[in-house]
Amino acid sequence: MSSKIRIAVLHGPNLNLLGTREPEIYGKETLSDINSRLVDLGEVLGVEVTTFQSNHEGVLIDCLHALRTTHHAVIINPGGLTHTSVALRDALAGISLPVYEVHLSNVHAREEFRHHSYISGIAVGVICGLGAQGYEFALKAAVTKLAGSK
Amino acid sequence: MSSKIRIAVLHGPNLNLLGTREPEIYGKETLSDINSRLVDLGEVLGVEVTTFQSNHEGVLIDCLHALRTTHHAVIINPGGLTHTSVALRDALAGISLPVYEVHLSNVHAREEFRHHSYISGIAVGVICGLGAQGYEFALKAAVTKLAGSK
Amino acid sequence: MSSKIRIAVLHGPNLNLLGTREPEIYGKETLSDINSRLVDLGEVLGVEVTTFQSNHEGVLIDCLHALRTTHHAVIINPGGLTHTSVALRDALAGISLPVYEVHLSNVHAREEFRHHSYISGIAVGVICGLGAQGYEFALKAAVTKLAGSK
Amino acid sequence: MSSKIRIAVLHGPNLNLLGTREPEIYGKETLSDINSRLVDLGEVLGVEVTTFQSNHEGVLIDCLHALRTTHHAVIINPGGLTHTSVALRDALAGISLPVYEVHLSNVHAREEFRHHSYISGIAVGVICGLGAQGYEFALKAAVTKLAGSK
Amino acid sequence: MSSKIRIAVLHGPNLNLLGTREPEIYGKETLSDINSRLVDLGEVLGVEVTTFQSNHEGVLIDCLHALRTTHHAVIINPGGLTHTSVALRDALAGISLPVYEVHLSNVHAREEFRHHSYISGIAVGVICGLGAQGYEFALKAAVTKLAGSK
Amino acid sequence: MSSKIRIAVLHGPNLNLLGTREPEIYGKETLSDINSRLVDLGEVLGVEVTTFQSNHEGVLIDCLHALRTTHHAVIINPGGLTHTSVALRDALAGISLPVYEVHLSNVHAREEFRHHSYISGIAVGVICGLGAQGYEFALKAAVTKLAGSK
Amino acid sequence: MSSKIRIAVLHGPNLNLLGTREPEIYGKETLSDINSRLVDLGEVLGVEVTTFQSNHEGVLIDCLHALRTTHHAVIINPGGLTHTSVALRDALAGISLPVYEVHLSNVHAREEFRHHSYISGIAVGVICGLGAQGYEFALKAAVTKLAGSK
Amino acid sequence: MSSKIRIAVLHGPNLNLLGTREPEIYGKETLSDINSRLVDLGEVLGVEVTTFQSNHEGVLIDCLHALRTTHHAVIINPGGLTHTSVALRDALAGISLPVYEVHLSNVHAREEFRHHSYISGIAVGVICGLGAQGYEFALKAAVTKLAGSK
Amino acid sequence: MSSKIRIAVLHGPNLNLLGTREPEIYGKETLSDINSRLVDLGEVLGVEVTTFQSNHEGVLIDCLHALRTTHHAVIINPGGLTHTSVALRDALAGISLPVYEVHLSNVHAREEFRHHSYISGIAVGVICGLGAQGYEFALKAAVTKLAGSK
Amino acid sequence: MSSKIRIAVLHGPNLNLLGTREPEIYGKETLSDINSRLVDLGEVLGVEVTTFQSNHEGVLIDCLHALRTTHHAVIINPGGLTHTSVALRDALAGISLPVYEVHLSNVHAREEFRHHSYISGIAVGVICGLGAQGYEFALKAAVTKLAGSK
Amino acid sequence: MSSKIRIAVLHGPNLNLLGTREPEIYGKETLSDINSRLVDLGEVLGVEVTTFQSNHEGVLIDCLHALRTTHHAVIINPGGLTHTSVALRDALAGISLPVYEVHLSNVHAREEFRHHSYISGIAVGVICGLGAQGYEFALKAAVTKLAGSK
Amino acid sequence: MSSKIRIAVLHGPNLNLLGTREPEIYGKETLSDINSRLVDLGEVLGVEVTTFQSNHEGVLIDCLHALRTTHHAVIINPGGLTHTSVALRDALAGISLPVYEVHLSNVHAREEFRHHSYISGIAVGVICGLGAQGYEFALKAAVTKLAGSK
Repeated sequence: MSSKIRIAVLHGPNLNLLGTREPEIYGKETLSDINSRLVDLGEVLGVEVTTFQSNHEGVLIDCLHALRTTHHAVIINPGGLTHTSVALRDALAGISLPVYEVHLSNVHAREEFRHHSYISGIAVGVICGLGAQGYEFALKAAVTKLAGSK
Repeated sequence: MSSKIRIAVLHGPNLNLLGTREPEIYGKETLSDINSRLVDLGEVLGVEVTTFQSNHEGVLIDCLHALRTTHHAVIINPGGLTHTSVALRDALAGISLPVYEVHLSNVHAREEFRHHSYISGIAVGVICGLGAQGYEFALKAAVTKLAGSK
Repeated sequence: MSSKIRIAVLHGPNLNLLGTREPEIYGKETLSDINSRLVDLGEVLGVEVTTFQSNHEGVLIDCLHALRTTHHAVIINPGGLTHTSVALRDALAGISLPVYEVHLSNVHAREEFRHHSYISGIAVGVICGLGAQGYEFALKAAVTKLAGSK
Repeated sequence: MSSKIRIAVLHGPNLNLLGTREPEIYGKETLSDINSRLVDLGEVLGVEVTTFQSNHEGVLIDCLHALRTTHHAVIINPGGLTHTSVALRDALAGISLPVYEVHLSNVHAREEFRHHSYISGIAVGVICGLGAQGYEFALKAAVTKLAGSK
Repeated sequence: MSSKIRIAVLHGPNLNLLGTREPEIYGKETLSDINSRLVDLGEVLGVEVTTFQSNHEGVLIDCLHALRTTHHAVIINPGGLTHTSVALRDALAGISLPVYEVHLSNVHAREEFRHHSYISGIAVGVICGLGAQGYEFALKAAVTKLAGSK
Repeated sequence: MSSKIRIAVLHGPNLNLLGTREPEIYGKETLSDINSRLVDLGEVLGVEVTTFQSNHEGVLIDCLHALRTTHHAVIINPGGLTHTSVALRDALAGISLPVYEVHLSNVHAREEFRHHSYISGIAVGVICGLGAQGYEFALKAAVTKLAGSK
Repeated sequence: MSSKIRIAVLHGPNLNLLGTREPEIYGKETLSDINSRLVDLGEVLGVEVTTFQSNHEGVLIDCLHALRTTHHAVIINPGGLTHTSVALRDALAGISLPVYEVHLSNVHAREEFRHHSYISGIAVGVICGLGAQGYEFALKAAVTKLAGSK
Repeated sequence: MSSKIRIAVLHGPNLNLLGTREPEIYGKETLSDINSRLVDLGEVLGVEVTTFQSNHEGVLIDCLHALRTTHHAVIINPGGLTHTSVALRDALAGISLPVYEVHLSNVHAREEFRHHSYISGIAVGVICGLGAQGYEFALKAAVTKLAGSK
Repeated sequence: MSSKIRIAVLHGPNLNLLGTREPEIYGKETLSDINSRLVDLGEVLGVEVTTFQSNHEGVLIDCLHALRTTHHAVIINPGGLTHTSVALRDALAGISLPVYEVHLSNVHAREEFRHHSYISGIAVGVICGLGAQGYEFALKAAVTKLAGSK
Repeated sequence: MSSKIRIAVLHGPNLNLLGTREPEIYGKETLSDINSRLVDLGEVLGVEVTTFQSNHEGVLIDCLHALRTTHHAVIINPGGLTHTSVALRDALAGISLPVYEVHLSNVHAREEFRHHSYISGIAVGVICGLGAQGYEFALKAAVTKLAGSK
Repeated sequence: MSSKIRIAVLHGPNLNLLGTREPEIYGKETLSDINSRLVDLGEVLGVEVTTFQSNHEGVLIDCLHALRTTHHAVIINPGGLTHTSVALRDALAGISLPVYEVHLSNVHAREEFRHHSYISGIAVGVICGLGAQGYEFALKAAVTKLAGSK
Repeated sequence: MSSKIRIAVLHGPNLNLLGTREPEIYGKETLSDINSRLVDLGEVLGVEVTTFQSNHEGVLIDCLHALRTTHHAVIINPGGLTHTSVALRDALAGISLPVYEVHLSNVHAREEFRHHSYISGIAVGVICGLGAQGYEFALKAAVTKLAGSK
């Protein structure tokens, strides 16, 4: 495998609805739009960006396991699993890659149960409320860190 | 697609065991019996009833997404996911259809952890403890509401 | 006394305001309208329906005691007492009749303090959020159960 | 008014059902039986015993106010109001008579919500789980105390 | 009915004991004294003041319902019901009049359970710890507001 | 061993200080006075009363084990262990004798941590706040119950 | 120093924004308007009113210390410090003057964290939700009390 | 089907990473190593051991349903689902087989959220902190129990 | 002292009642039976097993201190002290030997207060619900570990 | 004043220590370095960046008030005040500018008391754990938003 | 008995292990060293110091009772009993001597359950984290106080 | 700068009132008296003692920052900030000097909210309830430690 830096972007449950679901909270862009822009930004930054979405906790975990030896960082928006999935947290911790948690909306300004994340405790950093731009910042942060730690 | 009203009935984890699992709590009828009766009742009420069961949170979410443009209301018994799945809640909220939550047993008379539902907060109404009849009432309520809002 | 099945419908505090009070939450029908329809439905189902309303916890308890030997099931919307009255719970438990709890609005989608009910734990079933139709469903459920247990 | 010691025994909601309601918890004696025995015991002890029951919080409070200048101690089994009525607590505190709280069943061995009493904090003593005998002990304790403080 | 502004002052459980009950907390004035002064002040302010007291939650609710079409504001000292009555809250919310909550003592400096009020959440304002003067301030505030919103 | 009924009275930590320690809470009588009166009362009631005191949880447990086959009921004032000892609860539950819990002071009117008892949940009844008289009532209650169940 | 009664009115953080900040919650009057009216009212009542505002907890505490020997009562709207400052509470308690707590908005109808006040426990009384009029009532209450205790 | 005892061993999310993931917590053995040893031990004990792993809650539930009529006991290490899955608990309860819960690490010595298990309440027994040996003990316990209950 | 591995088995309060106390929870075997089997198993495994029981927290702590220089591991069933004794935890931590915690019953399926253990946090592993077999597994685990760390 | 977009960057208590204080948590860059880079980045983006630091809650509030009419967005790292200052929250809410909350370290991976922020609820977005880069992202996000809303 | 001031120093469970147990937390000095120094310091200060250690709650309580009439102050390090023993608290309160609580380590910087002490509420003062020097300070404080109150 | 050991003593809000404020809690000595004695004691011990008081959190933080390179230890009585200031904790942690926390009164015997300290977790030791003597002990402890670590 080439020595290029590869960064995975994972989107959890319901993010495939982006652009259609509650646009006042999540914005009008589709997930496909966001992913395209991230791949393009990756090219600009000289890294390979792989994107993935699933509504299945188990599929996300399988995917993370597969990334362990092929990628160098994970950007994840775990959707509703953020607040309920210890298994996802364990998968992220188990693959020993730097993790960046992104939320489109400001979860802290929503229902009480969205204020706690099982993921944040094992993430490098967390970005929320900045819409799709949050992913771009996470990508840049990951690249900066990986470049720095080389 | 015809203009007939279409209502989906979703059954969550373990409801496929109905009739065999803990009959003192859940009754002796099988899920198939219940579904047949709901389809029949739908015919009487002039609506099309689609039924679905899965033990997979992700499959239920996929299913809900698919219903968004083909159905007009959702009746759901989320089983054990009731108390733990924010992702299911988000899926139900995201498809913007009226939701009716049904539980066969009276969850409030069981373990403490069954007293809280992530679904109720975004449902139109909740019925519990009335066995399979609860689904029928939910179906009638949905039809009444959809008829009224036409 | 005749052997006809008799079912009591009790309405707790403030339900006499129905149709005037916060119609966006409770609907526009008056309590009298609802009661009439329930009596009519009772006739269709071959049971005698008695309705009663009081704003007084004590009067509701007295009433329940009186029903113990004359009626076969109780449908109750305890209003605000739902969340605060152990005495009402004890009265319902003490008369050993099947209890159906009804709420016009979806209490789970309102203030936190409306999420707990002292009544649910001793009820057969609970219906909320379906407006006046909830009473009708409770009536049918009670008749079904009493017919079945004969 | 004569100088005889007068002690009031108040029974709260649902205690009129005694002997009929859940006898496995509350015993088979009727309230009338208990009251008679207390009046008799009062005669033996040389005090006048007045008994009263109501299912109405407000009536119990009115009654307590009336006792303020005619009686010397209050024995009360507040029933379900034990756990929910600050108004009853305030009435008992407001009349400045010694209060003895009695429960027929052992409330501490029942549901969690029966473990807290608004009355105990302002009572002289509390007796629970000893059935009707608890009232007799409370009566004796009150007489002992009043005799001692003369 | 004349177009004069009518303001109701309701006193809850045990306030009839004022002047006799725990004067170190509640002061020496009787309820009758307070009511007289409020009626007089009403005359000065050009409004009609009606006063009412009951130890019965249900009677207070009945009274509030009656006020709905005859009065323009409610000043209420709910006594112990402050901390326990959702039914009273619902009655106050249901009649759609501005509500002013008054407590003679500073409830925040007393037992923990007096720190929460079911009424405050739906009141315009709350005054506590200022003795009988608190009612006068509430009356003036109500008049000011009603005058302003005319 | 004779067929006479034998009842044990156990006093937990610090009760040996009675009469000297904080008399405003616990009274002026010594433990020896109380025990003598209980033995005398036992004679009147035709039962044998054995008394025991220890400041050691372990000694109290050993003692309870020894009572299992020689006595018919236990009256216990567990002192401070009431609120902290699961081992004592287990010992009381393990010997399968009826248990009567007594506290000299009204624990519910003292510090918050005295409101919970590990013993009450497995006791027949609880008496508190009635001073040494509480033991006498417990003794009578035990005799009544044992007589009744013969 | 003359023997005239002097009353200090302190405004905490952000109250200098009054009239500009969130007028739907706090009203349109400026702090300067309110202060002027309070000084005028003081003159009418024969007392000297001093007003002060700071966004600094420490400055408010320094100010309170200075008032200890020059003033006779304190009216304070602690703004956001209400819910977070033990140091302010200690300063108010330490200067041994009667304290009146005022909030323009009804804090009990806002976010949960605004329902607890560190100040209320050591205040004479609390007024909230009555806008600027709340200060006037507090001023009158202070004058009444100081007049009474002379 | 033969009458041989069949015991299923289920491994939940992330256990497929064993030997690679956080070896300081979970040890160096792979899941395949552990499974082989369990099958071998089964042969020694005269029972058939079936092993299964999935990262999908739904697949584990499907699997459990299938085991209901083919196996006699379940040994499960639910991984992160231990702490979050009511659906898995319901599946385990619904198939009416004895359940043995195993954790490789001592969950009680890790994060607070790992101290609660939804599974333990319906398990026969729980073993944690003994590494892969824990499975062997569970297997022996299951065999002992099934042998005993034959 | 010989170089043989020595393992201590400590039984806490009430375990001396085994075989007599609540056999439906704890089984019919006596403690003596269990200890004999553990000593025999120790011989098979080539280690010396010492057993000890006390109902006294202090005696257990003294015993643990004595074991510090003579034994190599501790197996402990702390009985009711599990949930209440920090001193026992400190003793176990203080002697720096590997600790195995055993409970005969499944504590997680019993009362809420049995779900927390002060011992688990400093134990190597925990076994519960497997009856006397749990001790044998703990013994084997200890031997395995000590053998491995030689 | 020119029509250029002006963005303020505020640093709360202890951030002046950057580069010296706990570098393993906060990094080695000084605050001055960070500020310079932000000003430079502002120039690149065509906006004016003003930076400010204070250890005083009150000074930060004063500063925010001053920014209300001169700036268009606020980026703030409130340091320890994040978790304790309602007054700062009120100041940020009161000036009606978009707020971006930045933390250098991942507060969710530190002490429990750092998991709650009074600021997040009124912020547009939150970035934590990305070191000084977090400020840059916030600046870009603010510019993007202001550009978009022009 | 001579009129010399006598001060008792009590050490609770596990403190006999000092110098051997977890020296990184508790230091290297033995208890005997500490006691010798305290006796010497007592001589310098002109008071008689008695030291005592036990791992038994009951023995510590017995000891405290004995001190009641022979000593003038108690310095106690209750070890693990600090957090769990109401009986010890009651013994200390019951003997009416000034109590000084000492902990070698800073309990507030350790596990959450060490942050609460049943003893502190009835102590004169508390010293923790200063190692053996803490006892010396407590001794000096006791002597100062006793000298002052003579 | 000379090599003399320099120790700073900081007093938080309201401590300037010492001798005047609530003397029954805080004693009659003024802060100036205490400071003089500490400086004198410093001379005896051969260290330089600097004292400082402020009612401003921010000023205390600024002061701590300044001490970082000039002093060797900090003794602090944070007053009411103890319970509310994360910023002060961060300042103390950030300057990497040993911290000694002192409270004049026994905070554990006062209001519940005074039982938690944000400072204790990062202090070497804590002394409370010993009045001004507590500072002297802290000074000696600091000197002992600094001497020992040289």
